[in-house]
Amino acid sequence: MPTRRRFLRTFTAPLVSLPLASTIGECRPQSEKVLRVALMGLGGYAGRVAEAMKDCRRARITGLISGTPAKLQEWSRRNQVPEKNCYSYQSMDAIKNNPDIDAVYIITPNALHKEQTIRMARAGKHVICEKPMALNATEAKAMIDACKNAGVQLLIGYRMHFEAKTLEIIRQRNAGEFGKILFFQGLSGFRIGNPGQWRLNRSLAGGGAMMDIGIYSVNGARYMVGEDPLWVTAQETKTDPGKFKDGVDETITFQLGFPGGAIASCLSTYSMNNLDKFFLNGDRGFAELQPATGYGPIQGRTGKGELTAPHITHQTVQMDEMAAILLDGKKPVVPVDGAEGYKDMVIVDAIYEAVKTGQKIAIRL
Amino acid sequence: MPTRRRFLRTFTAPLVSLPLASTIGECRPQSEKVLRVALMGLGGYAGRVAEAMKDCRRARITGLISGTPAKLQEWSRRNQVPEKNCYSYQSMDAIKNNPDIDAVYIITPNALHKEQTIRMARAGKHVICEKPMALNATEAKAMIDACKNAGVQLLIGYRMHFEAKTLEIIRQRNAGEFGKILFFQGLSGFRIGNPGQWRLNRSLAGGGAMMDIGIYSVNGARYMVGEDPLWVTAQETKTDPGKFKDGVDETITFQLGFPGGAIASCLSTYSMNNLDKFFLNGDRGFAELQPATGYGPIQGRTGKGELTAPHITHQTVQMDEMAAILLDGKKPVVPVDGAEGYKDMVIVDAIYEAVKTGQKIAIRL
Repeated sequence: MPTRRRFLRTFTAPLVSLPLASTIGECRPQSEKVLRVALMGLGGYAGRVAEAMKDCRRARITGLISGTPAKLQEWSRRNQVPEKNCYSYQSMDAIKNNPDIDAVYIITPNALHKEQTIRMARAGKHVICEKPMALNATEAKAMIDACKNAGVQLLIGYRMHFEAKTLEIIRQRNAGEFGKILFFQGLSGFRIGNPGQWRLNRSLAGGGAMMDIGIYSVNGARYMVGEDPLWVTAQETKTDPGKFKDGVDETITFQLGFPGGAIASCLSTYSMNNLDKFFLNGDRGFAELQPATGYGPIQGRTGKGELTAPHITHQTVQMDEMAAILLDGKKPVVPVDGAEGYKDMVIVDAIYEAVKTGQKIAIRL
Repeated sequence: MPTRRRFLRTFTAPLVSLPLASTIGECRPQSEKVLRVALMGLGGYAGRVAEAMKDCRRARITGLISGTPAKLQEWSRRNQVPEKNCYSYQSMDAIKNNPDIDAVYIITPNALHKEQTIRMARAGKHVICEKPMALNATEAKAMIDACKNAGVQLLIGYRMHFEAKTLEIIRQRNAGEFGKILFFQGLSGFRIGNPGQWRLNRSLAGGGAMMDIGIYSVNGARYMVGEDPLWVTAQETKTDPGKFKDGVDETITFQLGFPGGAIASCLSTYSMNNLDKFFLNGDRGFAELQPATGYGPIQGRTGKGELTAPHITHQTVQMDEMAAILLDGKKPVVPVDGAEGYKDMVIVDAIYEAVKTGQKIAIRL
C-alpha cells in the first residue's frame, strides 16, 4: 500500500496530528496503534533504520537522542521530530515525562548499551537495543532485570528473526523436512576498514569481529538448528596485530555442540570480505542462505530449489513486528527479547573463554 | 585418441605381445614405457581403477592379488591377466621373480597396508598404496623406510592431486590471484550404509569417517592452502553409537592453523549425505569446489567464474601420471609420495589426540 503509506507519512507529521486521528482510525483497526520510537545514537546504522521506518505501518520516529547537537538538528528536520523530543545523553532521563515516546531504540557502541538501557527503563520506556545487547552476560542480566523492575519490555535488534526466507527455512525444519538436524555452518565476516573506528576499540566494542559480525553466526546457529548449544570450543588467529589490538579479535573459528547431536562450525572474521553464508544439514535435507544476514536481499535454497519469499527491507519488517510485540503482545516465531540476547552473550563469553583457555566450555543458559 | 587406445588395448593383450613392439614403438616415444601394475585387493574400488585403466596410455594391469580364488579367475579373464601373474596373499612374495610387474597397487582395508607395502617393497616392486596409507604415522614411517631400503618408490593414491580444476585453483593461488590465503573450509561426508562393512570395523579401518572420507579434507586443506599446518583442534559427536562403535568416529569437526595465518575449518562425517565441498578464501579472492573430491566431474569456480577444465576419469589420469613419476622421474605439482601420505597420517593422529584430550595439538611433520 505505498499510497496509503506515503499519505500517512506526510499527514501524520508533525507528530501529533489530532485532526487526522479519526481518518487514520478508519484505515487501521483500532488495535493497530503505532509505536512511537526515539532513536538513540545517530550513526550510520541509525540512518538505515530511519530510512527503513519510512515504510513502517506501525512504527515511527518521534524522538532523537544524540551527543552531537548538529546531528539532532539535521535529523529532527529530516524526520519531522519536534525539538522538544530531542535529547542529549545528559538530558535524556527527562524522556520519562514525554508522552510522545513509547520506546527507545539504542544504536550506540556496545559498551554503552547497559547503562543506556537501564536509564531508559527507569524512564519508563520500552527498550529496543541493537545487538550485541551488551559486553557480556553479566551486563545483559542487569539490563533484563532493570527492564523487568521498571515494567518495560526489552527487545534486541534481531532483524533476521523476521526475515521471510529465514522463517521459511525454520518452518520447513519444524515440519521435519530436513530430518534430524546434524550440522550448521556459519561464515560471518567482512574486511573492516578505518582502524580508528569504535568497533576496533576494545573498551567500546568489548571485543572485535565476534561482537560485531560473529554474533550473527552465534545467533544464526541457534535459530537455524532450533536448539540452544551445550558446549563451545574456539580458536583464534590474528594476521594483523597492528590493526587488531589485544582483546580485539580478528578471526575466531568456533564450534557449538547441541543436545540433539548437531554440531555447528562457524567463522567470525574482520579480515575476509563478503563472508555471509549459512548451511544447515539434516539427515533428509539441507538449507542454504547466502547472503544469510546482510541487509538483503537474502538468497536461500533447499534441496527443493530456490526460496522465493520476497525481500522487504529488514528494518521495516523488524520495527513493524516489534510494534506488534510491544503494543499487542504478539509472540514472534523466534524470540527477540532480552532473554534471547542474553543467550548469545553467554555463548560469546564462552567463546572468549574457550579461546583463552583452549578448553571446551560448557554453556549454562 | 580413442582409436589408438582401443587398438593398443586389443593388441597388447595377451600381455607381452612382442611382435607388436616395433609398431607400438612407432606410436609412442621410446621413453614412454608402460607401467605394468598388479592390483591387490579386488573390491569395489579396484573395479573402478581397473575400468579407468582401460583408457590409460601408460599403465596397464598385468597382475592380480586376491584372497578369493573365484575373484582371481574372473578378473584374470576380464583383464587378460595370465594365471601365472595371479597371486594369493600367501603366494604373493613370489611376485619378486615376476618380470611382468613393475608396481603393486594396494587397495585393501587400511589395517593391511603396512604389512602388504613392506612385503611388496621387499619383493622389489614399486608400491602404490590407497589412502589412508596406514593406521597411523608410525606405520607410515615404517612403510616409507621399507621402500627406501628396498630401493623402490612408494606412492599414495591421491587422485585429486592430478585433477584439472583442482590444479587450476592451485595455479591461480600460486600466481597470487586470491591474495593472502586466510581460510579453508572442507566438508567431507556421506551417509554410510551396511554396518557390517570393514570401514566400520576399527581393527580393519583404524577409525571411522576420518580415515575414509575426512582424510580428503585433511589432505585438501594442505593442497588448497599450500602449506602444512602447525596445530589442530578437533571435536567429536556421535548420534548413533550402535552403528559407530568405540573408536569408530561418526562425525568430527577439526580446525587447522597454518604458518601464514590461515585457518582451516573442516567436517568429517559418516552421517550426512553428499557433503563434498571445499572453499578457499584469500584477501583478494576465493575458490570453491563442489563436488570437490568425488569421482567427478568436479565443479569449481572462483570470483572470475566457473572453471572449465574438462573432466577425465580421475583414476585414468592418476595412473598415467604415476607411470610418469615411477618410470620417468616426473615431479607432480602436488606430491603423491610416501612423505605426503605420512603428513596426513601425522595430522590424523593429532586430530584423534585432540578429540581425546580436548587440547590443541601441535603438528610436527
